[in-house]
Amino acid sequence: MDFSSKLLENAVYEMSQLPGIGKRTALRLVLHLLKQPEERTNLLSEALTDLRAKVNFCKSCHNISDTEICEICSNHKRDKSLVCVVEDIRDVMAIESTSQYNGLYHVLGGKISPMEGIGPQDLSIVSLVNRVKEGEVKELIFALSSTMEGDTTNFYIYKQLEGLDVTTSTIARGIAVGDELEYADEVTLGRSILNRIPFENSIKAS
Amino acid sequence: MDFSSKLLENAVYEMSQLPGIGKRTALRLVLHLLKQPEERTNLLSEALTDLRAKVNFCKSCHNISDTEICEICSNHKRDKSLVCVVEDIRDVMAIESTSQYNGLYHVLGGKISPMEGIGPQDLSIVSLVNRVKEGEVKELIFALSSTMEGDTTNFYIYKQLEGLDVTTSTIARGIAVGDELEYADEVTLGRSILNRIPFENSIKAS
Ligand SMILES: [Zn+2]
Ligand SMILES: [Zn+2]
Repeated sequence: MDFSSKLLENAVYEMSQLPGIGKRTALRLVLHLLKQPEERTNLLSEALTDLRAKVNFCKSCHNISDTEICEICSNHKRDKSLVCVVEDIRDVMAIESTSQYNGLYHVLGGKISPMEGIGPQDLSIVSLVNRVKEGEVKELIFALSSTMEGDTTNFYIYKQLEGLDVTTSTIARGIAVGDELEYADEVTLGRSILNRIPFENSIKAS
Repeated sequence: MDFSSKLLENAVYEMSQLPGIGKRTALRLVLHLLKQPEERTNLLSEALTDLRAKVNFCKSCHNISDTEICEICSNHKRDKSLVCVVEDIRDVMAIESTSQYNGLYHVLGGKISPMEGIGPQDLSIVSLVNRVKEGEVKELIFALSSTMEGDTTNFYIYKQLEGLDVTTSTIARGIAVGDELEYADEVTLGRSILNRIPFENSIKAS
């Protein structure tokens, strides 16, 4: 693309670094901002830099939080014996929106994926095992996506827990195998948490 | 959506104000930035605020420019007797990328559209007529999209030029009627500039 302005070219370039945003889409978004009051752009920029500069992850569950310990972990009404293991904070948001779950979470930050060079050490697995060792957690619910990587990750964690006094379960799948958790409808997802099955059973089933 | 962080919620909200970016996409983009080095976010924010604060439009053709008069208008090798009338700076970029055109441009900033409340006074039509009155321009090439609004705008400008010594033409359409200019392939678009026809002929044809 042939830009008549370095400022424009630079803005389009930076915008197109976002995933799924090509040069043409980036140009469309940037030109949209130019047509809006300057405040619009400033609010967007500030919101992003502010988040990036001040972002904090809960010391216990690794969820994004504005406080040291997130609202979920510090809520005395939640069942601290139950921990739902998820990939990503989007999964926490998806499960929270079902209002069907009253336990805590553990955000792994991804799945084991040799193809993408993501090993166990890149995920918050050690801190999960430590949470279990502290003794308060009685059950881990695996809620990773049901892909090869998800299954591998579940199994890896399961092996790390050997000898520890904790039950493991996986959420029931009312949704198609391979579907992403975050796109499931709330009813199905809520049901699948309630109908979770012992992890051992899920190994036999597959 | 249930956000665990006000900072996150705010960033997602501002991102989702962009056209075509829903809440889920906004969340995905924001979480991507969180996984990247902080510099990435700062470069994006700065590029956007910088552009918005310092953006300048060429005094002559209304193209985006970092200087008072854009590089195209101030290029002595370009044919100043030829002015191509376009909607938007994206059209300038599309035509420039064909390397088939050596004249100048005039960016209207849109099309006349009673449905969207855009009248002639919202577009840079007066300044176009003034450019013609100055006497150097011998031919205007209408390169608006061939929609009802595009045709209305062409005709409105054509009427404003009555009595002035200027030829009008429209770009030849090798591409389907109704297609957006900026998505045309470069060869077709370049050809359509070279094969432009007198505007009067295009009225008769339609
Ligand atoms: Zn927490
Ligand atoms: Zn110019």
